[in-house]
Amino acid sequence: MSLVIVGSMAFDEIDTPFGNSGRVIGGSCTYSSISASYFAKDIKVVSVVGNDFPEEAMTMMRNKNIDLAGVDIKKDEKSFFWHGRYHNDLNSRDTLVTELNVLGTFNPVLPESYKQTDFLFLGNLSPEVQRSVIGQVTNRPKLIAMDTMNFWMDIALEELKKTLKLVDLLIINDEEARQLSGEYSLVKAARKIKEIENEFLLSKTGEHDALLFRRTGIFFAPALPLEDVFDPTGAGDTFAGGFMGYLAKTGDTRFENMKRAVIYGSAAASFCVEKFGTQRLEELSEQEISKRVEKFVKLVDFTIETVEAMES
Amino acid sequence: MSLVIVGSMAFDEIDTPFGNSGRVIGGSCTYSSISASYFAKDIKVVSVVGNDFPEEAMTMMRNKNIDLAGVDIKKDEKSFFWHGRYHNDLNSRDTLVTELNVLGTFNPVLPESYKQTDFLFLGNLSPEVQRSVIGQVTNRPKLIAMDTMNFWMDIALEELKKTLKLVDLLIINDEEARQLSGEYSLVKAARKIKEIENEFLLSKTGEHDALLFRRTGIFFAPALPLEDVFDPTGAGDTFAGGFMGYLAKTGDTRFENMKRAVIYGSAAASFCVEKFGTQRLEELSEQEISKRVEKFVKLVDFTIETVEAMES
Repeated sequence: MSLVIVGSMAFDEIDTPFGNSGRVIGGSCTYSSISASYFAKDIKVVSVVGNDFPEEAMTMMRNKNIDLAGVDIKKDEKSFFWHGRYHNDLNSRDTLVTELNVLGTFNPVLPESYKQTDFLFLGNLSPEVQRSVIGQVTNRPKLIAMDTMNFWMDIALEELKKTLKLVDLLIINDEEARQLSGEYSLVKAARKIKEIENEFLLSKTGEHDALLFRRTGIFFAPALPLEDVFDPTGAGDTFAGGFMGYLAKTGDTRFENMKRAVIYGSAAASFCVEKFGTQRLEELSEQEISKRVEKFVKLVDFTIETVEAMES
Repeated sequence: MSLVIVGSMAFDEIDTPFGNSGRVIGGSCTYSSISASYFAKDIKVVSVVGNDFPEEAMTMMRNKNIDLAGVDIKKDEKSFFWHGRYHNDLNSRDTLVTELNVLGTFNPVLPESYKQTDFLFLGNLSPEVQRSVIGQVTNRPKLIAMDTMNFWMDIALEELKKTLKLVDLLIINDEEARQLSGEYSLVKAARKIKEIENEFLLSKTGEHDALLFRRTGIFFAPALPLEDVFDPTGAGDTFAGGFMGYLAKTGDTRFENMKRAVIYGSAAASFCVEKFGTQRLEELSEQEISKRVEKFVKLVDFTIETVEAMES
């Protein structure tokens, strides 16, 4: 089934304790569409870049069956640029430089061929921009998911709530869920946020875990314990892309299948962090993903016959 | 099978964002033995208290089949006292008061009836004291587990390593594992620590997760997402006690059974944090534990046919 992804395509420069990445391609749309491409075959991207965005990167994406008809190339402008430095624990980072460039006036326009879509993923953009995309889709997708961040909660909370009402699934990290709900307990936070919308996915990036909340239950997927985390940039977008890609591949939004989508998203994210930028993600094979998913299965596998165990 | 637990029995005073506990009973031995008592029937405790430790607390423990013959009551001294204040997120805390009192000269002596034991759990004490206990056991227990903390890594690392060589299982949190190994990656940390000993259990307290590393594999158990965490004090000891109690109940130290022990320990810990001190833990029923274990089973349950999924 088809999947439309809206978000940034950008340049990043990343400092980690292991070195400097130099200027590499990044952006939520880049990570999530590459990740989704390992699952879904009909992916359409809406983004904006300057004339500096490398043609090779676009070719790499097209070779993964990613439709770039919705990417607006601004001939006289520059692409979004972010430079960040991770702390030693790789769990926190400082932003050194943010140059909005073309993203400052990003006003996504869906090509005609995008307007009927089965799945829609809205990367972290202003809530108004996200809403304008939903308004351009002519059918009601099977599932609309969105990302957001603290910044929008700080400056545009009411707008954000309006957008939330139109989507099925929110993908944010635990701190964002706490800020949005005003509740520390994630169970309570999820309940409050679900009062606005139907479902709620909580995702932590990097080495962390994913919690899927739905009316019918809660599902937890741990992050794979990894030998090394080299660069956490893009892990959350890669997770979301794998998750949405798996849903689009299967066309099945029941809770049991969404759990599987979480596992596939986590598997994709676990590769993303192994090298700088999109490097590791670009070169994945389905066999590698499959093997990593098997590791997940083993990691959480146990058998308990609860009644029997307590009566023995 | 029999389980000997060595550690502190103490008074705590706890400040959380929800209020002050007043003076309540606490200590690693108290939490872990009460927790273990829901699984194992032959639990023997080695500890030291002053004349101020309440007889009702001792009676409560005896009523749970906990043998207190190894508890030294120092008639003219006071019990260990700790006063701590949790930060708003309940994940970190400051120590306001520590009065070692009787614990300052604690030199555990095993009663004759304790010297043959199937399982031995050494709470967080100085590595020399832990070693002296191992020296008093006349058989080789099926499994010896120990807790420790950063403090001993700072001031007595070589002593700690000597003790580690004598035990099968180390129960610490992730920061302690990182400090002990000098490795940030928990996978690498576990491998380094396993070079010293055989097995390695990593436990985070409170709302957090447990990772069990063994040569043959890694097992992850999430913390149950709770509505409310009221007081995280003792959660780690409760986890360890439930874990050891389940092993002692079943007498089975194979990896598959240790995984189950992790789940039961986590279930016990999830109750501990619901009220101040040992309050919630004292009043548990086996049915409540069983129900919570069922929640764990559901929380991580998913089905993936990996090969099939990738080929479809």
